[in-house]
Amino acid sequence: MSSDPEILQGEIDRLRLQVESLQAKSGAKSISIGNYLLTRLAQLGATSMFGVPGDFNLGFLDLVEDHPEIDWVGNCNELNAAYAADGYARIKEGSLGVVTTTFGVGELSAINGIAGAFSEMVPVLHIVGVPSTTQQKNKPILHHTLGDGRYDAYLKAASQFTIFNAEIKDKPSAAQLIDQAITTCITRARPVYLTLPTDLVLAEVSSEPLNIPLSNAPSPNPSPEEEFVLETIQQRVKEAEGDVVVIIDACVMRHRVRTEVQDFLKQTGFPVYATPMGKTAINENYTRYGGVYIGSLTPAAIKDRVEHAKLIISIGSLASDFNTGNFSYNIPTRRHIELHSTYTQIQYAHFDGVGMKQLLPKLTEKLSSLHAVASKLEVPKFVKPVPDESTDTITHAWFWPRVASLFRPNDIIVTETGTSNFGILDVPLPENTILVNQILWGSIGWSVGSCLGAALAGKAIGRDRVILFVGDGSLYISYLYLNILRIDLSNRQLTVQEISTIIKKSLKPIIFVINNKGYSVEKFIHGKQRRYNDISQWNYKKILETFNDDDKFETASYSARTKQEVSALLDSPSFTSANKIQLVDISMEALDAPYALQKQFELSGGTDVYAPVQ
Amino acid sequence: MSSDPEILQGEIDRLRLQVESLQAKSGAKSISIGNYLLTRLAQLGATSMFGVPGDFNLGFLDLVEDHPEIDWVGNCNELNAAYAADGYARIKEGSLGVVTTTFGVGELSAINGIAGAFSEMVPVLHIVGVPSTTQQKNKPILHHTLGDGRYDAYLKAASQFTIFNAEIKDKPSAAQLIDQAITTCITRARPVYLTLPTDLVLAEVSSEPLNIPLSNAPSPNPSPEEEFVLETIQQRVKEAEGDVVVIIDACVMRHRVRTEVQDFLKQTGFPVYATPMGKTAINENYTRYGGVYIGSLTPAAIKDRVEHAKLIISIGSLASDFNTGNFSYNIPTRRHIELHSTYTQIQYAHFDGVGMKQLLPKLTEKLSSLHAVASKLEVPKFVKPVPDESTDTITHAWFWPRVASLFRPNDIIVTETGTSNFGILDVPLPENTILVNQILWGSIGWSVGSCLGAALAGKAIGRDRVILFVGDGSLYISYLYLNILRIDLSNRQLTVQEISTIIKKSLKPIIFVINNKGYSVEKFIHGKQRRYNDISQWNYKKILETFNDDDKFETASYSARTKQEVSALLDSPSFTSANKIQLVDISMEALDAPYALQKQFELSGGTDVYAPVQ
Repeated sequence: MSSDPEILQGEIDRLRLQVESLQAKSGAKSISIGNYLLTRLAQLGATSMFGVPGDFNLGFLDLVEDHPEIDWVGNCNELNAAYAADGYARIKEGSLGVVTTTFGVGELSAINGIAGAFSEMVPVLHIVGVPSTTQQKNKPILHHTLGDGRYDAYLKAASQFTIFNAEIKDKPSAAQLIDQAITTCITRARPVYLTLPTDLVLAEVSSEPLNIPLSNAPSPNPSPEEEFVLETIQQRVKEAEGDVVVIIDACVMRHRVRTEVQDFLKQTGFPVYATPMGKTAINENYTRYGGVYIGSLTPAAIKDRVEHAKLIISIGSLASDFNTGNFSYNIPTRRHIELHSTYTQIQYAHFDGVGMKQLLPKLTEKLSSLHAVASKLEVPKFVKPVPDESTDTITHAWFWPRVASLFRPNDIIVTETGTSNFGILDVPLPENTILVNQILWGSIGWSVGSCLGAALAGKAIGRDRVILFVGDGSLYISYLYLNILRIDLSNRQLTVQEISTIIKKSLKPIIFVINNKGYSVEKFIHGKQRRYNDISQWNYKKILETFNDDDKFETASYSARTKQEVSALLDSPSFTSANKIQLVDISMEALDAPYALQKQFELSGGTDVYAPVQ
Repeated sequence: MSSDPEILQGEIDRLRLQVESLQAKSGAKSISIGNYLLTRLAQLGATSMFGVPGDFNLGFLDLVEDHPEIDWVGNCNELNAAYAADGYARIKEGSLGVVTTTFGVGELSAINGIAGAFSEMVPVLHIVGVPSTTQQKNKPILHHTLGDGRYDAYLKAASQFTIFNAEIKDKPSAAQLIDQAITTCITRARPVYLTLPTDLVLAEVSSEPLNIPLSNAPSPNPSPEEEFVLETIQQRVKEAEGDVVVIIDACVMRHRVRTEVQDFLKQTGFPVYATPMGKTAINENYTRYGGVYIGSLTPAAIKDRVEHAKLIISIGSLASDFNTGNFSYNIPTRRHIELHSTYTQIQYAHFDGVGMKQLLPKLTEKLSSLHAVASKLEVPKFVKPVPDESTDTITHAWFWPRVASLFRPNDIIVTETGTSNFGILDVPLPENTILVNQILWGSIGWSVGSCLGAALAGKAIGRDRVILFVGDGSLYISYLYLNILRIDLSNRQLTVQEISTIIKKSLKPIIFVINNKGYSVEKFIHGKQRRYNDISQWNYKKILETFNDDDKFETASYSARTKQEVSALLDSPSFTSANKIQLVDISMEALDAPYALQKQFELSGGTDVYAPVQ
């Protein structure tokens, strides 16, 4: 037993908070607002909290640290923390990602990550520690303010990228606001902003509401409209005489209808294809799965089967440029039905409020009798053999099918914007893998932070292996104007320090850095090299050494310059067992790119968005 | 001569742009909008451009790269780029800092840096490459959009932190908008947001306006009000019978009245003191300079001299919490005159529109006859001898006076939020040094990016030595609640990668990392250790090695654990010559702090802002 009163007092404080948290569970009468919030998060399985300490959130972080179920991760900076919360929410479906920052300086650094979660429909709760209610009334020129008394400026900026703002201002409304914030975040799958003033963190409120768990289910569909929609779809499907294909997209995962979709597909037997953002929403070894559809960038065999169907049912579609081969879908509205989270579109008719979560099981029931007809449509198995190439050089065409041997069921695979996002499309993934990408928002550097969050969520749900592909990736393709940037190395430069948090948390992802050595492939398109695409050369092998706390954590770095070196690694049981963090520097040629990207160059070379207005 | 048509075409493109830029100077008729903007920036001496490439700004970056006078710096991420533009503008007075980012993902990552420039009144122009005018009209779901067609969301967020938004939308208004953007940015010393659509970058406009340089002078004072103000101040000064002191603050630098103030002080002979944010606005070896005034945290000898004067004239005051010893000025309004950039305050009377830039020379003329009387007030020289301590341990009390021997005239000294900001207050700096800090906004990590910008600006104006103090620094002190965080190491974790840009640009700052090894001094206040203040331990010596491109750039790292080791470095001519980038890891005790911080603990210990509302 310690005789140091400071240590003893610390233990007393910790136990007191633990008691309070347990009392909340057993229905005791009173709880601090801070712990009310934490209890709600724990009830919904949000047990990792990302963020950076700052003076306006320290009181709340005391509670976080003492909470028996919630783990404070602690990031290197706020942007990475927001990326990590995003990655966490993508893996822990039905729960949410949480990032805590401080007033002004902290929250604004996270805003790009929050906007990305808005764009990509990921439920992230952004908790901001703010000055006391008195300070917010009197508006002194505190540090972290704009010096002009505008204490609401940050909220105004934040509200551009959130679906709801919960400004906690007093005790009476606090619990209800917290409940509304969390429910809205999950059911609408979008970021919510919540401010916690320093003087309200420990203010006591009734813990009664905590006895009723929050629902994460969307509101029910209006019943006559739903019935009409069901009948109309049934009619269209009958008219198509079984010649129906299904395209699944991002919102199948974002709005948690994976199970409903799987059931729908199995009962009906319709052929199914995925978009880039929808890949792994259905198991890729499912016998009726035909591969990835991406408009005019789709290989011809797949493209024809999708576009020639009499009826195409899209589920959870997110029709962004890079997800649709630059808006090159060849699917007439007349042959198209779209199921969304909050509406249904049948040909030209819009049915507001009829969401897919409740619609799908009923549709399955209505259409399951069609199984025999639907099964007549043949679906060639989606495979990608490793090509037999004569050179030692590691090419995209060879690398992606080859790396497939590394993947196992339940893996989490994270790909960065660019070649990695495209390269992975060619690889059939084992069942129950989850592919995580950010194709719509496309913020370079996102994947490293996201990998941290995904790995923590994976650990909590029994998915231990995480594989990250970063770098090179960042071949940017602008709409119409194909300008390929080699900012692969910058990827790591943007967020590299978060690797140290991954190490600190004893996570063991395999990180592939696809490296094509500082020469711009822009030349390929533009005819010249641009200095602005040059970036500083780093010694990548030293990165893990810099971060591993003098070998306290085991790390391993490799470089692979030939196919043989890649294969040797992929065949090595010690490498594939992923029992420590591993970084692989993969050398590729500057002018190489995956199939879909090359196809895109062919299709749209020549048009230049910088052509001046006359 | 090359026979490669790609290379030859590249040279043709480059020469064409150079010709265009030179034609603009000689008054030729037409110029692209992109080059019009660059010509205006070059005219005003903004010759370094910070930022990160992205697909919506590439066409503009082609022009930047080909511009004969503007250097593209290229940062690791956008937040660091904004910090660097801020540091650049602080050193190149009369010019502005420029940061270029891309739509959505890029610009939002910079927003905390821009908000900091707003808060601290630094002229930073934020150029954002945005989609074409057609895309902005049709609003497709492009990558980097929110997926809901709100193309104006980023501008709405940005406008919380800017003084003006210039949305370039067509050719006819472009030149005038660019001129207004730049003029507003400099004269009001605040950030301006400027959007450049891809299809307007190369659109041609008349170059005529470029023949008339933009003015960076503020608008003139209204003359009857000004005359009244002059007479009233003269009357108050006479009544004070020479018992007048002057306090100079941040806005002397921000609104470029350094010369006017110097002249005013020399002609009148008034004693002068500086605030923390005003330090180095006047040469600290000036005979009538008495040191730093920071309310109740001021050493008694200085405090009495300031507060007991019959009349106190504040110039360019910025009364934030940390700049005023938590609002503890003991200066009654009745004895106080304040000169600001856009108004004057005489006791209780407010005179709008009477700005100090034009007022000061006239005031100097009116008051210079008082020199003899004013000189009677004695001003003890501001000195800080190195204390004689018996231990080897490096203490703040010893370190700051000791490190003073390193400083030379014309040095630029950058200090991070926290102990460094307070420690440097005790050190008298040589003439013409510039101290750069961010006391109001206080964004941890700012100093590394800012150091890069300051070093580039310094190089351009003949200030070659830059010394950065970072780390430990981040002792946060919240208003009322004194909570000291040891996030010193996080400082480097936030922005460490920008050291690689400093290396790439062959800049040679001396970087002092003040390190107290992962134990929170919070214990000192709170009685317990908190895990959220722990951060990952890095191997700091490897940082420069990771970044120096396999020894292509010369770097040196040192660690100092004793006073002797510090002194040996400071006495070494090879170290002080600063002919390569150098990093010094300085070990200090966790419970140590500079005088002003310790004083603050004494004064306000006990009150706890987290005390709950009942």
